[in-house]
Amino acid sequence: MTEPGRPSGRAADALRRVDIVTGFARHAEGSALIRMGGTEVLCAASVEGRVPGFLRNSGQGWVTAEYGMLPRATHTRGDREAARGKQSGRTQEIQRLIGRSLRAVVDRAALGEMTITLDCDVLNADGGTRCAAITGAYVALALAIKKLRAANVLKGDPLIGQVAAVSCGIAVGVPVLDLDYAEDSGAEADANFVLTASGGIVEIQATAERATFDEAAFGVLLGLARIGTAALFAAQQAAIDAA
Amino acid sequence: MTEPGRPSGRAADALRRVDIVTGFARHAEGSALIRMGGTEVLCAASVEGRVPGFLRNSGQGWVTAEYGMLPRATHTRGDREAARGKQSGRTQEIQRLIGRSLRAVVDRAALGEMTITLDCDVLNADGGTRCAAITGAYVALALAIKKLRAANVLKGDPLIGQVAAVSCGIAVGVPVLDLDYAEDSGAEADANFVLTASGGIVEIQATAERATFDEAAFGVLLGLARIGTAALFAAQQAAIDAA
Amino acid sequence: MTEPGRPSGRAADALRRVDIVTGFARHAEGSALIRMGGTEVLCAASVEGRVPGFLRNSGQGWVTAEYGMLPRATHTRGDREAARGKQSGRTQEIQRLIGRSLRAVVDRAALGEMTITLDCDVLNADGGTRCAAITGAYVALALAIKKLRAANVLKGDPLIGQVAAVSCGIAVGVPVLDLDYAEDSGAEADANFVLTASGGIVEIQATAERATFDEAAFGVLLGLARIGTAALFAAQQAAIDAA
Amino acid sequence: MTEPGRPSGRAADALRRVDIVTGFARHAEGSALIRMGGTEVLCAASVEGRVPGFLRNSGQGWVTAEYGMLPRATHTRGDREAARGKQSGRTQEIQRLIGRSLRAVVDRAALGEMTITLDCDVLNADGGTRCAAITGAYVALALAIKKLRAANVLKGDPLIGQVAAVSCGIAVGVPVLDLDYAEDSGAEADANFVLTASGGIVEIQATAERATFDEAAFGVLLGLARIGTAALFAAQQAAIDAA
Amino acid sequence: MTEPGRPSGRAADALRRVDIVTGFARHAEGSALIRMGGTEVLCAASVEGRVPGFLRNSGQGWVTAEYGMLPRATHTRGDREAARGKQSGRTQEIQRLIGRSLRAVVDRAALGEMTITLDCDVLNADGGTRCAAITGAYVALALAIKKLRAANVLKGDPLIGQVAAVSCGIAVGVPVLDLDYAEDSGAEADANFVLTASGGIVEIQATAERATFDEAAFGVLLGLARIGTAALFAAQQAAIDAA
Amino acid sequence: MTEPGRPSGRAADALRRVDIVTGFARHAEGSALIRMGGTEVLCAASVEGRVPGFLRNSGQGWVTAEYGMLPRATHTRGDREAARGKQSGRTQEIQRLIGRSLRAVVDRAALGEMTITLDCDVLNADGGTRCAAITGAYVALALAIKKLRAANVLKGDPLIGQVAAVSCGIAVGVPVLDLDYAEDSGAEADANFVLTASGGIVEIQATAERATFDEAAFGVLLGLARIGTAALFAAQQAAIDAA
Repeated sequence: MTEPGRPSGRAADALRRVDIVTGFARHAEGSALIRMGGTEVLCAASVEGRVPGFLRNSGQGWVTAEYGMLPRATHTRGDREAARGKQSGRTQEIQRLIGRSLRAVVDRAALGEMTITLDCDVLNADGGTRCAAITGAYVALALAIKKLRAANVLKGDPLIGQVAAVSCGIAVGVPVLDLDYAEDSGAEADANFVLTASGGIVEIQATAERATFDEAAFGVLLGLARIGTAALFAAQQAAIDAA
Repeated sequence: MTEPGRPSGRAADALRRVDIVTGFARHAEGSALIRMGGTEVLCAASVEGRVPGFLRNSGQGWVTAEYGMLPRATHTRGDREAARGKQSGRTQEIQRLIGRSLRAVVDRAALGEMTITLDCDVLNADGGTRCAAITGAYVALALAIKKLRAANVLKGDPLIGQVAAVSCGIAVGVPVLDLDYAEDSGAEADANFVLTASGGIVEIQATAERATFDEAAFGVLLGLARIGTAALFAAQQAAIDAA
Repeated sequence: MTEPGRPSGRAADALRRVDIVTGFARHAEGSALIRMGGTEVLCAASVEGRVPGFLRNSGQGWVTAEYGMLPRATHTRGDREAARGKQSGRTQEIQRLIGRSLRAVVDRAALGEMTITLDCDVLNADGGTRCAAITGAYVALALAIKKLRAANVLKGDPLIGQVAAVSCGIAVGVPVLDLDYAEDSGAEADANFVLTASGGIVEIQATAERATFDEAAFGVLLGLARIGTAALFAAQQAAIDAA
Repeated sequence: MTEPGRPSGRAADALRRVDIVTGFARHAEGSALIRMGGTEVLCAASVEGRVPGFLRNSGQGWVTAEYGMLPRATHTRGDREAARGKQSGRTQEIQRLIGRSLRAVVDRAALGEMTITLDCDVLNADGGTRCAAITGAYVALALAIKKLRAANVLKGDPLIGQVAAVSCGIAVGVPVLDLDYAEDSGAEADANFVLTASGGIVEIQATAERATFDEAAFGVLLGLARIGTAALFAAQQAAIDAA
Repeated sequence: MTEPGRPSGRAADALRRVDIVTGFARHAEGSALIRMGGTEVLCAASVEGRVPGFLRNSGQGWVTAEYGMLPRATHTRGDREAARGKQSGRTQEIQRLIGRSLRAVVDRAALGEMTITLDCDVLNADGGTRCAAITGAYVALALAIKKLRAANVLKGDPLIGQVAAVSCGIAVGVPVLDLDYAEDSGAEADANFVLTASGGIVEIQATAERATFDEAAFGVLLGLARIGTAALFAAQQAAIDAA
Repeated sequence: MTEPGRPSGRAADALRRVDIVTGFARHAEGSALIRMGGTEVLCAASVEGRVPGFLRNSGQGWVTAEYGMLPRATHTRGDREAARGKQSGRTQEIQRLIGRSLRAVVDRAALGEMTITLDCDVLNADGGTRCAAITGAYVALALAIKKLRAANVLKGDPLIGQVAAVSCGIAVGVPVLDLDYAEDSGAEADANFVLTASGGIVEIQATAERATFDEAAFGVLLGLARIGTAALFAAQQAAIDAA
């Protein structure tokens, strides 16, 4: 299954090159700098011994995320959100998605009343930053939990699954895996899949950008996402084991 | 296909009662007060003869949406966003979704350099407010365009499709259509489908809340959404015709 | 006393048609949708078992109000205050007035350490929204207190008076009652009166818009306000009794 | 007409000592530091050769005001509004009132497309700051217009009246003039009157704080305000003449 | 050492006329209105019996400052920061500098868990406002501490030094002391020195505006600052003794 | 000149290891990732063909900077400024300093009406981030100008000097160069020097943290800064030449 017409020359079901470097954020309890082609996201896990108000005295922990993009991560410089005085709707949407995705693989009772915050900051952007953020944040989270367990702060293992994300889309009429910016900006449809290593679906966000699509096309996209996340799960595990 | 256990007593594939009252916002170019069970959203279309900066001199129009919830639309009073000084991430996420959904059925070149803003304000909330907003906003938009065409402001018809939205979910293990608040807050998974009358998929947002789901379950949810939107398309058309 | 020249054809001392529908906000402890001609305001009372910091441990309760206007309640769409990130000076001025007006008829010691918030949201605007908000909010407040007394949460009755508001003005040289938008926007002077059923004055806000006025003219306006509020007190009572 | 019981020992119809020092703000086109007893407000008029958007090409000018209070103008330090990031509702209400009051004595067509901004900053507060601000701002405005006329920037005289303001109230059952903070904080009712030298009423804001009042009491308050403003008009004129 | 070319005609090492009036802010625990030529800053010290969170239960007090400028303190009117909704970077930089400068002469353990806030508000600006603010704030602080000691709230003396500030600069090639606005706006370099009466350096902020400078020139500036602060220390002490 | 007691074991006049990697921000016209020991700052230069309003039609360009710190660049996670909705006073102070420092070596007339923005984002913090940002931003700026000249967008060379910055301080009584976080947080005094390769002083910011210092000590700090910047100038030049 190949498609000669992709701008990158990749086969329709081929991921970009993936690298995950752990420990980049020196002070963080766990961190991963993930590169998927030209997209580069620094994910850092911070552990705090308290939870938001709505969970106090619940015995349950919290996992949340914040997302940002350096002003010149993109082709033309964007406003700095801190200077503008607010996060865009897109930023908030993405950080909510990252948080939900990670909470899907965490047993919050086993975590206890602690908060783990995943900061996902895009250093270079070339499409697929939210998916890279989820995939990298999982590694940072796993490393932070590993450290807490090694220090005996946690007795059990709150990590109950492995999660990764990838984007698929329909470009020039063809379903393709892992779009870069050039491909994404002209795609007819765009879908982000957050999946688990055990075969579960955590989140689907599919949007028709230029033309609606049907059930069959959607099925192909989901199939591509399964192929892509299989490779990502392996890359995550390798990075965690090597850390 | 019935499920005796739904809190509302509805069959698994049964919508709540739907009413669409047009003309409620007296000054708007088009408006619809949509009720789906206990959820009530006032949708008003406002037409302005200018477009955002990025479309100036493009010959293309813009369709956008804003969403709000009255503080006491819910069981317990929520903060007024105007008083807090910012819209929540949830609000921004929803209004971006409404805007994208409606743009999918508008030929923006045929609209010309005008902006139509859909204000969707929830007067009473009982689950499914974003879907009701999309379904009602379509009616408000169609009425505004009808008015512009009757006044010869528009020559052609920029409306190139019909769009509606419905939520489905998995509750107590069973896929069900159109969840109310009681059902939604305990559901294992929750999915919003934005579909067109001609069979296209505009947007899917599916989230595992308590347990991941698989391809088969997702297929059932999409099937329920097709059933639900079929009824909504009829209700929209009846309201537009009667206006 | 009639004036053939009013745009609405009403006599100088005639109110617009008044309707008060209770229970519109289903979750609120008390609510009233008040219509005065083309002006329509949804008033909802929310009860909370705590007070602002300055009243903690004082044994006294608090009654406050928030005011908003849907963006397309008006002839041309206004900015959404939540999107702009702040409430206008006009909004704040109005909600402070509503709160003061209601506190004038509440024995806050009898209320005890509870807060009742009146949300007044304008669905359709045609002049006189602040007065309609006060008149409707009184009904919502009375119903909420009735409910608290029926549930034995309150032993005594904190409601020690009945309050309503109406605008008067001088238009084309003639003092008139209850101005609509067309009349108000051209009036020489504009005055809002908040009065009690027992004959007390709670608040007067009179402003010369185009020409100053004198003591005599002011006296006539106050007389008209007494006429108008007499009818409003009756409408309020009827709505409360029927609820 | 005296009332031995006033905390200040003043007669019921006696103003506090009034001083108006012109030229305090050295760069302003006109300025007045007004002292009414322990209340001290610096009023500065700034002239700019442009108008807000809604008046562009209308041939009309604009007069507006901003109000502020130094954090330690009061008994206990208040928050600095610039640090908090927003002006309070009270501040906005007051600055809107000052602007309206001054516009009532300006012929905006004779002013032409210029904006005069009156900055009223409270250096020391002891009650009645909004009334002192209006009275002082009139002097600053008159001096700025005098300067513009002397420089032949203005041919005609846009100043068509003289305006001043004073507060009255009912304290311990007795109507009194010009309340200081101690008297105001315990008063049953409080009213601010903005009046013109030619006998016109510009604005009335009367509020029942602890007990409602009636038409007769209100009439006495208005009479006291006439007495008080007569003295203020003389003080304003003396300051302007001496400048 | 004179320089005929200074716009003010002053010698290169001459301060502007300095006046310090105490007690201007009537409610403040200590206050000083300092005038240095055409620059006038009102400094008020407020004492509160609590400290910021990071010092709670530390036994240490806190001294901090806020800075503001009235909109028409300057040649052309500036925006009111409270209306714009935020303090400028310049304002924050200055108020942080004032706070640090005063903390350098306070033994915070001897102060105990109290906060003294110095509000420095510029009424008229003609250059050197931050230095005048520091010099005046020291007087306000000293008076507040004197009052606390007189009232036996403080047993020991937390004031362990005397601090003042002055600006120096290089204008038309010549190092000069205490620049006014006309001189400052054209200067090649500008330096603010915060020094103590016992010869210590608290803070230096030197900036090349138009041309870099060298070690020798810097030494001359520092020498001028010693001359200037000697006079300021005397003026401060005289004001404190006379209060 | 060595001091056995430095926590890092460095000599009093020894810099930390310096690395400058160019091209890290792939889309920027010039970029440098500078590491000084454990401090790591990504500096990116963005060129835009327009200037701020105050320079329009002046023929002059603008150079400005923005500074940020990733939330987990530090030992404990800090708030994300974009989420809090404003930049801290510290952030604004630093970005103003970076901008001034770079403008000191740019001929803005030779630049013409273009803006170059330097984004300096701290990825890892271990003291001295503002100085590292200035030193790295110079490299990013020089590369961006080199690119503009290679593309013939610029005819002349607007870069008229070379600037770098380093911090010095007095720790345990000894003047030392280039403090890391551990050393800085306990230092008695802290000074940042921005110097040029040709011997000019651009900016000095010296602060007594725990004890004031005198002229002699200050002279030693400035001497250390000259030693440190000499090495930084070489590192900058090597990075630029190798790019």
